[in-house]
Amino acid sequence: MRYANALSEKDTQELDQLYANIKAKTATVLGYPVAMDFDYSELYRFLQFPVNNIGDPFIESTYGISTRAMEAEVLDFFARLYRAEQGGWWGYITNGGSEGNMYGLYLARELYPKAMVYYSESTHYSVQKNLHLLDMPSIAIRTKENGEIDYEDLHDTIRMNRNMPVIVFANIGTTMTEARDDIRKIKSIFKDLAIHHYYIHADAALTGGYCSYTDPCPAFDFEDGIDSLSVSGHKFIGSPIPCGIVLVKKSHRDRIANSVAYIGTVDTTITGSRNGITPLFLWYAIKRYGLEGFKLRTERCLQVAAYAVEAFNKIGLAAWRNEQAITVVFAEIPKALCLKWQLASDNGRTHIICMPGITEERIDLLVQDILLTASHSKEETFNLIIKQK
Amino acid sequence: MRYANALSEKDTQELDQLYANIKAKTATVLGYPVAMDFDYSELYRFLQFPVNNIGDPFIESTYGISTRAMEAEVLDFFARLYRAEQGGWWGYITNGGSEGNMYGLYLARELYPKAMVYYSESTHYSVQKNLHLLDMPSIAIRTKENGEIDYEDLHDTIRMNRNMPVIVFANIGTTMTEARDDIRKIKSIFKDLAIHHYYIHADAALTGGYCSYTDPCPAFDFEDGIDSLSVSGHKFIGSPIPCGIVLVKKSHRDRIANSVAYIGTVDTTITGSRNGITPLFLWYAIKRYGLEGFKLRTERCLQVAAYAVEAFNKIGLAAWRNEQAITVVFAEIPKALCLKWQLASDNGRTHIICMPGITEERIDLLVQDILLTASHSKEETFNLIIKQK
Repeated sequence: MRYANALSEKDTQELDQLYANIKAKTATVLGYPVAMDFDYSELYRFLQFPVNNIGDPFIESTYGISTRAMEAEVLDFFARLYRAEQGGWWGYITNGGSEGNMYGLYLARELYPKAMVYYSESTHYSVQKNLHLLDMPSIAIRTKENGEIDYEDLHDTIRMNRNMPVIVFANIGTTMTEARDDIRKIKSIFKDLAIHHYYIHADAALTGGYCSYTDPCPAFDFEDGIDSLSVSGHKFIGSPIPCGIVLVKKSHRDRIANSVAYIGTVDTTITGSRNGITPLFLWYAIKRYGLEGFKLRTERCLQVAAYAVEAFNKIGLAAWRNEQAITVVFAEIPKALCLKWQLASDNGRTHIICMPGITEERIDLLVQDILLTASHSKEETFNLIIKQK
Repeated sequence: MRYANALSEKDTQELDQLYANIKAKTATVLGYPVAMDFDYSELYRFLQFPVNNIGDPFIESTYGISTRAMEAEVLDFFARLYRAEQGGWWGYITNGGSEGNMYGLYLARELYPKAMVYYSESTHYSVQKNLHLLDMPSIAIRTKENGEIDYEDLHDTIRMNRNMPVIVFANIGTTMTEARDDIRKIKSIFKDLAIHHYYIHADAALTGGYCSYTDPCPAFDFEDGIDSLSVSGHKFIGSPIPCGIVLVKKSHRDRIANSVAYIGTVDTTITGSRNGITPLFLWYAIKRYGLEGFKLRTERCLQVAAYAVEAFNKIGLAAWRNEQAITVVFAEIPKALCLKWQLASDNGRTHIICMPGITEERIDLLVQDILLTASHSKEETFNLIIKQK
């Protein structure tokens, strides 16, 4: 770095402090869906170069400093995993789940400009931001107790808007309870109401990372009837940089390509310059884990989740999880504990997510903290629950 | 990485091949606006952690593994550089220039839903993709020979649509010739036509990285009258991962915050999860270069650009550049050369961009290649130009 000085002592201290702080915080994450057991040090050498997977990953570029070949391999891995038709899919590696959701909704809007979007009330708030940005009309649908979309309410609501094409934004793992909307049930509603113009986008941000390896496996993928899917890369696989994969039916993407062709480009990605480092991370993880490794990792997470449910219930804190979910839900605990363990709360509930890297020991530490806090807490209900035991 | 195997021999070879390929390609970049002289190895240790600057950088989060404090410092640096009103700006670090442009246009649409967008025909194609996504009506304006917007055509066209609020998407450095639209001249058109409802977004992707350090400095920043600005981080400063900064007038952002408040969030960023590593890179670069280092780096680029113009003209290849620009424009050269030196072409013209890291020696190598090719080329016009000399 010519014309640059070494970092000042003060700045070095600030950096070291940040490092120590981040390290400590990583040791007490329990409420966020991020894997912590990754190691990409073998790839750091690529950070010397201005890597950029600019534009459509499948269209050649004059810019040679890219990891496009690896990106294509990653996409192919996920297309198979999600049972997309061979040769019938298209996609790219995004900057995170939200971008993939926006892309899916954008495609849906281009196909059905006059459609109504339906999503459950458990949907992540970023989706409403996306809908606002894309200027798409939408209706929120009630959820069942477990966070899954209420199919009856969905049926009734679509029935009242039968004149409009239907776009369903389905959650394959809601943020709070990791509930999965059942694509086959949704499709049976369309059949019942003779809806022929519809589009289903699956937001599989966290759960899409592993649910293909579980038995039973939810009805969520291309063979089950979706049109597009977004999954995060930094969640189940793990990455120091947010990333994700969006996959869509190729025929849909081709139609959008036509509609932007007057611009003189066939690049239908949302961004121009694109991260070429995260595709490399994902490629590396896929090569090193393989299907077998991902399956073992999944089983381990489910094991820890089962352990956590039992541990919480044992001390009188009623906890539960959806079938084959790694998210454990329980009543909100005192704020200081939520802060320390970085637990997000919503409507009097909170959760831990048993991501790769989280062990029974970390669950035990939280349980100890809960017991300790309960014995000193002024919050009566909280006291009561624990003391009842 | 538990449950992971070591990389297979085949995969290791593929990775090593990629490394060698990227290294070689980096040595022959001349046509893309990416700095190559960065070194962030001191920061690689942060890649062990699931860093995420989720949501609005100025709103506290329960997620602690972030570099928000550094992000705020970076934003403050650029807000001062672009003469934003103290306390009157807001912004965040994006995944690249396009995202910042989309954010600026989104804000403009929220403020003036019935406006017409004007942009010059030299505008990057991603902007039209953004306008399509945001569903905003727009008109392309003619450009002058040097790539700058034709103020007369802009004046006439706005005059014919005086009933609509005006959104101008201004280029501070076009992709091909690095032409800068003059914000003061644009504002004088508004004054002349008594347009009171207007919004100016500045796309300063490359040029915004350094033009504040040149004399004369183009009319392009908040004091000159813009409402929002997008600049890339991976271009002039340099980064192995695309990134950028978007800055907007705080009052505009607050209005958008109100319009999405029904969603129950004050997070107005487009994405949810956000990269926390690139803010650290930018922070590090700012600390190490300082204003003085950036100024010296700028002068060096201008020096190489001046050298290139002279070197091309000396061999009979007519080359020119805009005032204080580091982009040198000349007639398209044979395809094999464009491929080797990664030069993008448009309408019979091509360019090199004298980014930090590019030296006179690299220019000399290109000149040698041109002479060598000319002596063997079957392309008559090309031959003619060079042989005339």
